[in-house]
Amino acid sequence: MEIRLPASMERLVARLRKLPGVGTQTAQRHAWELLRWQEDELQALAEELATLHQRVVPCPVCGFFTEEKLCPICASPDRDRSQICVVETAPQVPIIERTGCYHGLYHVLGGRFSPLSGITPENLRWEPLRQRLANPQVKEMILATSTDVEGQATAKLLLEDFQREGLAITRLAIGVPTGADLAYTDTPSLALALNGRQKFS
Amino acid sequence: MEIRLPASMERLVARLRKLPGVGTQTAQRHAWELLRWQEDELQALAEELATLHQRVVPCPVCGFFTEEKLCPICASPDRDRSQICVVETAPQVPIIERTGCYHGLYHVLGGRFSPLSGITPENLRWEPLRQRLANPQVKEMILATSTDVEGQATAKLLLEDFQREGLAITRLAIGVPTGADLAYTDTPSLALALNGRQKFS
Repeated sequence: MEIRLPASMERLVARLRKLPGVGTQTAQRHAWELLRWQEDELQALAEELATLHQRVVPCPVCGFFTEEKLCPICASPDRDRSQICVVETAPQVPIIERTGCYHGLYHVLGGRFSPLSGITPENLRWEPLRQRLANPQVKEMILATSTDVEGQATAKLLLEDFQREGLAITRLAIGVPTGADLAYTDTPSLALALNGRQKFS
Repeated sequence: MEIRLPASMERLVARLRKLPGVGTQTAQRHAWELLRWQEDELQALAEELATLHQRVVPCPVCGFFTEEKLCPICASPDRDRSQICVVETAPQVPIIERTGCYHGLYHVLGGRFSPLSGITPENLRWEPLRQRLANPQVKEMILATSTDVEGQATAKLLLEDFQREGLAITRLAIGVPTGADLAYTDTPSLALALNGRQKFS
């Protein structure tokens, strides 16, 4: 016999359940905890959420997120501007940064080629990538898309579309387990994969 | 090498980390996911949080939470008003309800006796319990405080303070593992403990 929680609690639980890996039980524990928070703490969290999208915006160059004009990587004078590492989503950028092996720039596609889900280059940051690669200063594009079927298809398409004289196109080396999302790769494996990246053909 | 996330993201991560069982990595995954939410969904969650405390308030009788004048249990004509089950915190009420074995009322103490943390009966809903027990209609107080040292001390204190002619004071039976929080007890064990509850002395 389940007691009906107050409707506001139920709504809160339903919303919290949309977070990754949060089921009903975890969402309920969160909701109870939130009810116990100090009013000012709760208001502060609500305020962070309410203003998140207006404060944190995609970097106009690479698509990573920033509160400034450019993201810290694009804005840094210390990054190697001859390399662009193409990832599917923004959270993959800090995952690669953590290896400490890469000092170039990034490009966030915003997804991967998936015609079955209606995602084609038009829905991705594909043309902005074309413009960046047109700059002869760029000597290497590193493909860090996922190693599952759609990630591989995306890499293939990038290779076909952006091949040009003087641009090396490489792919993360073996070391990334196949079929896995980059977000679940341990840092040492990812470091190996970066150091051993191979020409993509 | 860690990339600095936008400051708003870092603040959001710090706040989400205060939820039970949420570490830095989980909080970051939540923050990235929240960034991807539709604006209206994010605003709806923010609104739920901002108004939570003003909508969900403790039931003036038992201390459980409600959006109405009384909580659904105190308001129900079907509950046995001769029994009051004393729990430490509100989330323990639905946990006991789930067993389907109990049809009486509840009383949420709001914590447990813990002089070392400065929690004495004055900080708990102790006097309101005294008033409820003064009603001769109440024939049994079931102590469902935790089975750790402080929970046992709280039970002892309740026994000493509220003993009176015609009031049976019982305690959840063996079946609740010792040293455990009620929130982690599986429902069948809790059902056994309720059915086998014993006179407390």
